[in-house]
Amino acid sequence: MDKRLDFGKLTLGTCYYPEHWPEELWRSDIDRMLENGISVIRIAEFAWNKFEPEEDIYDMSFFDRFLDVAEQTPIKVIFCTPTATPPAWLTDRYPEVLNAFIDGTLIQHGLRRHYNYNSPVYLEKTADIVRRIARHYGKRKCIIGWQIDNEFNCESTEFYSESDHYAFREYVKAKYLTLDKLNEAWGTAFWNQTYTDWSQVYLPRPTANGIFNPHQQLEAKGFWSHSVREYCALQSRILRENIPAGQFITHNGFFGHLDSHAMTQESLDFLTYDSYPNFAYVLDFNSKNPMKDRAWSWNLCHIRSISPVFGIMEQQSGPNGAYGGGLGASSPKPGQLRLWSMQSLAHGADYISYFRWRTSRLGTEIYWHGILDQNNRDTRRLAEVKQVSKDLEKLACVKGTDYEAEVAIAFDYLDDWDSENDGWHGPVGRKSQDSWFDAMQKAHIPCDFVYFSDDCTAESLRRYKLIVFPDAAIVTEMASELLHDYVREGGTLVIGPLTGYKDENGLVPMTDAPGPLRDLAGGITDEYTFVSRYDDEPEVDLNGTAVPAPLFNEILIPETADVIGTYRDGVWYEGKPAVTRNRFGEGVCIKCGSAFSEEAVLSVLESEGIASPLSGRVDAPQSVEAAVRGGVLFLLNYLGAPAEIKVSGKANDLLSGDTLSGTVTIPPYGVLALRDWQ
Amino acid sequence: MDKRLDFGKLTLGTCYYPEHWPEELWRSDIDRMLENGISVIRIAEFAWNKFEPEEDIYDMSFFDRFLDVAEQTPIKVIFCTPTATPPAWLTDRYPEVLNAFIDGTLIQHGLRRHYNYNSPVYLEKTADIVRRIARHYGKRKCIIGWQIDNEFNCESTEFYSESDHYAFREYVKAKYLTLDKLNEAWGTAFWNQTYTDWSQVYLPRPTANGIFNPHQQLEAKGFWSHSVREYCALQSRILRENIPAGQFITHNGFFGHLDSHAMTQESLDFLTYDSYPNFAYVLDFNSKNPMKDRAWSWNLCHIRSISPVFGIMEQQSGPNGAYGGGLGASSPKPGQLRLWSMQSLAHGADYISYFRWRTSRLGTEIYWHGILDQNNRDTRRLAEVKQVSKDLEKLACVKGTDYEAEVAIAFDYLDDWDSENDGWHGPVGRKSQDSWFDAMQKAHIPCDFVYFSDDCTAESLRRYKLIVFPDAAIVTEMASELLHDYVREGGTLVIGPLTGYKDENGLVPMTDAPGPLRDLAGGITDEYTFVSRYDDEPEVDLNGTAVPAPLFNEILIPETADVIGTYRDGVWYEGKPAVTRNRFGEGVCIKCGSAFSEEAVLSVLESEGIASPLSGRVDAPQSVEAAVRGGVLFLLNYLGAPAEIKVSGKANDLLSGDTLSGTVTIPPYGVLALRDWQ
Amino acid sequence: MDKRLDFGKLTLGTCYYPEHWPEELWRSDIDRMLENGISVIRIAEFAWNKFEPEEDIYDMSFFDRFLDVAEQTPIKVIFCTPTATPPAWLTDRYPEVLNAFIDGTLIQHGLRRHYNYNSPVYLEKTADIVRRIARHYGKRKCIIGWQIDNEFNCESTEFYSESDHYAFREYVKAKYLTLDKLNEAWGTAFWNQTYTDWSQVYLPRPTANGIFNPHQQLEAKGFWSHSVREYCALQSRILRENIPAGQFITHNGFFGHLDSHAMTQESLDFLTYDSYPNFAYVLDFNSKNPMKDRAWSWNLCHIRSISPVFGIMEQQSGPNGAYGGGLGASSPKPGQLRLWSMQSLAHGADYISYFRWRTSRLGTEIYWHGILDQNNRDTRRLAEVKQVSKDLEKLACVKGTDYEAEVAIAFDYLDDWDSENDGWHGPVGRKSQDSWFDAMQKAHIPCDFVYFSDDCTAESLRRYKLIVFPDAAIVTEMASELLHDYVREGGTLVIGPLTGYKDENGLVPMTDAPGPLRDLAGGITDEYTFVSRYDDEPEVDLNGTAVPAPLFNEILIPETADVIGTYRDGVWYEGKPAVTRNRFGEGVCIKCGSAFSEEAVLSVLESEGIASPLSGRVDAPQSVEAAVRGGVLFLLNYLGAPAEIKVSGKANDLLSGDTLSGTVTIPPYGVLALRDWQ
Repeated sequence: MDKRLDFGKLTLGTCYYPEHWPEELWRSDIDRMLENGISVIRIAEFAWNKFEPEEDIYDMSFFDRFLDVAEQTPIKVIFCTPTATPPAWLTDRYPEVLNAFIDGTLIQHGLRRHYNYNSPVYLEKTADIVRRIARHYGKRKCIIGWQIDNEFNCESTEFYSESDHYAFREYVKAKYLTLDKLNEAWGTAFWNQTYTDWSQVYLPRPTANGIFNPHQQLEAKGFWSHSVREYCALQSRILRENIPAGQFITHNGFFGHLDSHAMTQESLDFLTYDSYPNFAYVLDFNSKNPMKDRAWSWNLCHIRSISPVFGIMEQQSGPNGAYGGGLGASSPKPGQLRLWSMQSLAHGADYISYFRWRTSRLGTEIYWHGILDQNNRDTRRLAEVKQVSKDLEKLACVKGTDYEAEVAIAFDYLDDWDSENDGWHGPVGRKSQDSWFDAMQKAHIPCDFVYFSDDCTAESLRRYKLIVFPDAAIVTEMASELLHDYVREGGTLVIGPLTGYKDENGLVPMTDAPGPLRDLAGGITDEYTFVSRYDDEPEVDLNGTAVPAPLFNEILIPETADVIGTYRDGVWYEGKPAVTRNRFGEGVCIKCGSAFSEEAVLSVLESEGIASPLSGRVDAPQSVEAAVRGGVLFLLNYLGAPAEIKVSGKANDLLSGDTLSGTVTIPPYGVLALRDWQ
Repeated sequence: MDKRLDFGKLTLGTCYYPEHWPEELWRSDIDRMLENGISVIRIAEFAWNKFEPEEDIYDMSFFDRFLDVAEQTPIKVIFCTPTATPPAWLTDRYPEVLNAFIDGTLIQHGLRRHYNYNSPVYLEKTADIVRRIARHYGKRKCIIGWQIDNEFNCESTEFYSESDHYAFREYVKAKYLTLDKLNEAWGTAFWNQTYTDWSQVYLPRPTANGIFNPHQQLEAKGFWSHSVREYCALQSRILRENIPAGQFITHNGFFGHLDSHAMTQESLDFLTYDSYPNFAYVLDFNSKNPMKDRAWSWNLCHIRSISPVFGIMEQQSGPNGAYGGGLGASSPKPGQLRLWSMQSLAHGADYISYFRWRTSRLGTEIYWHGILDQNNRDTRRLAEVKQVSKDLEKLACVKGTDYEAEVAIAFDYLDDWDSENDGWHGPVGRKSQDSWFDAMQKAHIPCDFVYFSDDCTAESLRRYKLIVFPDAAIVTEMASELLHDYVREGGTLVIGPLTGYKDENGLVPMTDAPGPLRDLAGGITDEYTFVSRYDDEPEVDLNGTAVPAPLFNEILIPETADVIGTYRDGVWYEGKPAVTRNRFGEGVCIKCGSAFSEEAVLSVLESEGIASPLSGRVDAPQSVEAAVRGGVLFLLNYLGAPAEIKVSGKANDLLSGDTLSGTVTIPPYGVLALRDWQ
Repeated sequence: MDKRLDFGKLTLGTCYYPEHWPEELWRSDIDRMLENGISVIRIAEFAWNKFEPEEDIYDMSFFDRFLDVAEQTPIKVIFCTPTATPPAWLTDRYPEVLNAFIDGTLIQHGLRRHYNYNSPVYLEKTADIVRRIARHYGKRKCIIGWQIDNEFNCESTEFYSESDHYAFREYVKAKYLTLDKLNEAWGTAFWNQTYTDWSQVYLPRPTANGIFNPHQQLEAKGFWSHSVREYCALQSRILRENIPAGQFITHNGFFGHLDSHAMTQESLDFLTYDSYPNFAYVLDFNSKNPMKDRAWSWNLCHIRSISPVFGIMEQQSGPNGAYGGGLGASSPKPGQLRLWSMQSLAHGADYISYFRWRTSRLGTEIYWHGILDQNNRDTRRLAEVKQVSKDLEKLACVKGTDYEAEVAIAFDYLDDWDSENDGWHGPVGRKSQDSWFDAMQKAHIPCDFVYFSDDCTAESLRRYKLIVFPDAAIVTEMASELLHDYVREGGTLVIGPLTGYKDENGLVPMTDAPGPLRDLAGGITDEYTFVSRYDDEPEVDLNGTAVPAPLFNEILIPETADVIGTYRDGVWYEGKPAVTRNRFGEGVCIKCGSAFSEEAVLSVLESEGIASPLSGRVDAPQSVEAAVRGGVLFLLNYLGAPAEIKVSGKANDLLSGDTLSGTVTIPPYGVLALRDWQ
């Protein structure tokens, strides 16, 4: 897939809510944006009542007035469909459009995202309002594109309304055709769950202990993803039919129980993301500490795997976050707003839209700050935005280019959903994923993510020297084929414990693990054990060094593979094979029996000859992130202290215009963009 | 307001439940109370079925028999209305009288306070039973007064029954008249919440993430407070119409979502309080540690702000508490029962009624101990009660007198309710309030509380040299006027961060903070930041000393004010104004940009010339509380170890009768009452 | 009662699910079991749909085919009634058979145990299916016995369906006959809870704070226990009427709110238990650390008190446990499977059935491992099972013999249920129970448990030198009589704090504690205090040594008793009586005023002359458990390190066949079975 954004140049934008402010402010706000380097605004995503204040009564005048003002200026507009927040009259008259908790309690008007994707009434109301808006505003010359709804599956990733139960039944009917097949796929022989009539089939419902049939639960997640995709496709079709050809269609966000790859492929021109790195200081991301906001680089890798060049529809520009608890983050410190903008850009963003122009006076987001505070005074952050706009001019050469990486971490939606409720799969997989990301971050080795979604091709994998699929309990048929091709043609594949343990329904086959990857791995798993918190952490002798073997240990039986790691003293399986390396076709497959530690990752990278792009050029501390895009080496200092680096030879810093060599100090939260090495 | 209790002399009482014990015990119980210095009992607050065992069938004989016995003795009686616990027949036949959780689940018969204040049926049943009881028992000569219901809003401070939703709709209709005004007040432009028909308006209902429109939520709390006040007023009116003029009307408790000032003003002769200091050892009051039961002095200040001379309707007299978890407090140690009684008295209580005579054999309160245990043996606690009764005779001179303080901490109900759900306002405000209380406790500086409720007058503020309004996110028009008058006429006002940040609906105005107090503060706020747990705690150079600047830091822009504190090294706003002092009229306003630390409080108190009444008279450790009432200096030792103090000159201790001078030891949990200094 | 299992010899079995596996595997699975020493299988407990796939359509062919295969081999079968998991058609058509949460939310199809025991429909469907299965399969020669349902009250111990409310009302009607008596028993005079019509009576329903009338709550638990017993008796009667005389009837499990003693007495030939010692490493059993899996010896004592010789219906044979969270236990280490089998055997199990043959491929138990993994390879665990089968042959002499103990810990169901929700009774009782078990484990003093259930006799108590009733808040009339007899005839009784504090309804009588045991104790309790976490832990001078006096301290007033322990310095009741010893008849009663510490237990055991069976024979570390059964001394090493013991004289180890003397090393997880001392 090449669903990439192209605005013609690196561009800054902001999110604006005309409905929150006096009309008298509109023009001065837009002028002030333009003066500070902002040339695009996004509007209208929560404004249904400004189009249809009462059922079947339409009034387009409010945004007409606003667009009239906008069109007196060079500002460009991304217009939104307003379906994320149905009006009070709609949910009050048609409660069937509401989402429900698993116990059936309806989620009512008062926040947002309280609707479900399957109510016939809501689908009809959605089609109507989207069609009317597209037809009415689509011809406006200031509009460059459209955002569908807002942050699908934020707040809620599970849906249990009557409409959802009904649609789920139809969905599995269409998928399995017979109850026998459904019973087999859901393993209903277990605990007498066999269904004998379609009317007995529901989404998961309350159980005594909150644990559910895992296969049914996995099915539900696939269904929820399907529901969003259908809903997005509905809007996309209507928009396409009613807007001029040049306007793009996008959506913002990357949330749970949604195959965003498939959705983008089906319905969007590219994906955008809402990036709030400071949440790292509110939520708890232990493994990313002390470089917590680098967790957002992880997020950006996900987005880039969908749209290699993407947009940030909401880039944090002030203190966060929601009205309720968990607000303990400080305001972005001087330089951080720019740092996070550069983080987005280095990872592939050509459009950065700050959220939001001015902080809300109203509702649950009075602390979800924008560039300006409610008092409308010029802020330090506004000046920093202006600086970024100037930086972008200096970085024009990276526009449209790809992030460069030799290594990719592989993901699979089905596998990911399966891991959420599984007490082994989840922790083991996450531990391995985190070790890979963290180790590569610290070693300054850029990486991409790849997803075994419909848009994944052998070709897209072939560009990587090494692919690791660290959490591969479910290896789909597609993933297996792609990986076989990849290794056969010379790639290096790394896999971890529990690989191939389950089938696509989450059932455990009677075959030996790693199941479909057995020939790649060149061996099987004999026995395994979780590592209890009462056990000392085991170690593996890997390539001659002791590395930790955390959380889960498999004893391997090599068939064609070589043993390159064995368990060390202190466990009863001491000396048994822990890591193997197998030649397959032109390539190699490394199978690790324990969850990955950072040390194990570094050992594998080294032995397989993966080096940092800094190698031979720059010595930099771990606190500095390295990224290469369009031939430019970005160095980002996430700490509030200066970072000292050593440059071998000379290079130009596009941002400062200086030629750098020898010992160089990056200021707190500072960024270098190096090119033209000599 | 001067809603003060006057029983003619300092008086002891107890709570008694004739319905729990054999009638044969009644007379001996009363005789034994009288022998031990108890002259008043409270009865009948949970005894509806003893008046109306079945619907419309009335039988007053039970309490007639009891009162006959009582009237054979000098005991006096406080009679209660029994509405806190509707009978089973009532809730079973009329489920609409029940309260509900937010999801609509009804709260059923089996505990207490399961009714709602708005059901027409319950209002009718209430009026009927109160009228009948008042008429029947009001003429009894032993009755000196009435308690309405029991502990309004204990157990539940939120109400979501159908009756409440309906009454709420009527309440906002009457308040706003038009939906436009409601939409504006509730900020419904945010997230498309606009209401277009009154039928769409509800109390908060379930949302996806449990966060609600904060303005609607604030409205709901005002409504709940209003509901209790109306309910109390209903009972008060009926009582007044049906009881003799000399009998007083009171209520006991101080719970959430209730403006107790207004309720007292409207419906009561004075307020009483239920004081259980040992809960400090069950619940967690970190900031009050290691003098945990002094948290109850804080509570008593609240009560005193309503009724300068008040009563303790329930004073802890044994081990606490409820049947369920959290019972880890030890029995009151020898002296503690007397200490807590003196704490109440020193803070303004002229009536102390122990809860309860004898511990319940039944129900959820078998561990909520009284003076006697269930075995009815004489206890150590009974002897201590008798001692207190003798102490009261020695302290007769303080009867009816006021607690003496030069400093007041200001509160506002609306502001307080707003802080409950707000991730910034709440923690920042509480931190500042706690620092003020703790610092003054440790420095032996008595303080009062003042509330900007309807009964607050400029006159009542004028008696304080210094008023601090530490949590003032919402400054109502009334508060602003009173504070302007206060400072103009020579008072010293201290305010903290976030002052004036919100309007009375919880919306953020576009004006610069501190909004209505800008002219008092003599400046505005430029920028602010939460202090993250990942930041080092900043400091301020205040009056020449470094003091901590915890939790929240505002950078101030003085206009007419002087800068008396600046941020120190270690933050990016180093050297920027943190604390300012402004002359306004005859007075002064100090604005502190950070949450208050205890150190900052002490610095301000010193620089503004506020001294302890111990100054020049007594040296005492922090563990001893100082209070002055009616010219008598109380020194209370909360620790289980002796406290050594030094007395300059001589003073008489009213309790021991000794003249004290030089080094004096207060025994563990001991109390001195000093007067007649020489 | 002597409800003991007798299979003719020590026997191994396993749990098998023919419905989970291809029919082609059946024969080879059975052959492989037999080869490895397994001679019994349990089947069909979750297979209702294999008998009645649709309502009133019966098809017995599936298990006929399976039993045909089984009968080609010597394998024996325990057949189950399938009522633990009603089919989808049943719950879908008759939702009244479902259990409900307290708020009325139904617990739906999808897990197990979602039915209630009181729905007339479910009782009818149960009777029908049990009758048909018993008639059809009962004549099969391979069947040796029946298991009724599966693990009653696992997952849910509370039942709030409409059927339960209704049945509860009938239950209390039958018990109390009049509402007056119910009102008295439930203490409804408290908080006006008086019932005036039976229709007002329910099981506990939602209250504002989740606390309920404790007497009603206690009644509910008795009712739930009664419901299970009736349900089990129904099945037992039908089975008895329809199966051959030689086949036994049993049930597996020991869960909450169920008097398993009474149920076994009424309906079963013996009880079996499901033993998963590795859960000690998942759940948190602090007090049993670091010998966590010895917590399961505690569990086995409970089972043995019902069936002195019992069976393990499910013995852990692989990694555990459920699909959801909390899975952090490691796989059984080499030797642990055998160790846990020997633990079961030493405590009285003559039948050990491993759960399960092969790990499930389906559902929530894909991690609840069996002997084999899903891949069907021979495992280390299978070899260990085979070794156990050989061990059993060497231990044939213990078959049918009793565990030998001089000390018994007494329990009472009513008392136990009362403790669950009581913030004093619960923690105090559990602390004392744990101290007794732990101290005796560490001192190698075997103990039995005795329950004051209907089957308890004076005779059964008389065999113990010392009985401790450490948690005796409720002393029933039966318990009182038995204990009086026991002491009168020469036994030594030890009781702790809060003894006799409540009556059988959980009401507190006006008598002095310990109420019915006052004459045994030879004194009463004056005053008491919880020991707060803010207090230093008090000590008692007991028999001349200082021992900790944790959690709760009573000051005793001896009447005829001697004081053998007094409180030490540091508490205000220093020097007051803490422990007394009273002669009564031929025996002795020791009353301890504080919760028991391990040190206090050891002091009492020593002063009362209770010695370990190791005494003079073996010196062993605390990590080794000692158990004596049929004259054989078992020594079990629970640690992963060798344990060194010293043997005085000589003894034969039945397992190794060696004669041991002097210093002997037990390997990690190793077991000795010593006999024939010289």
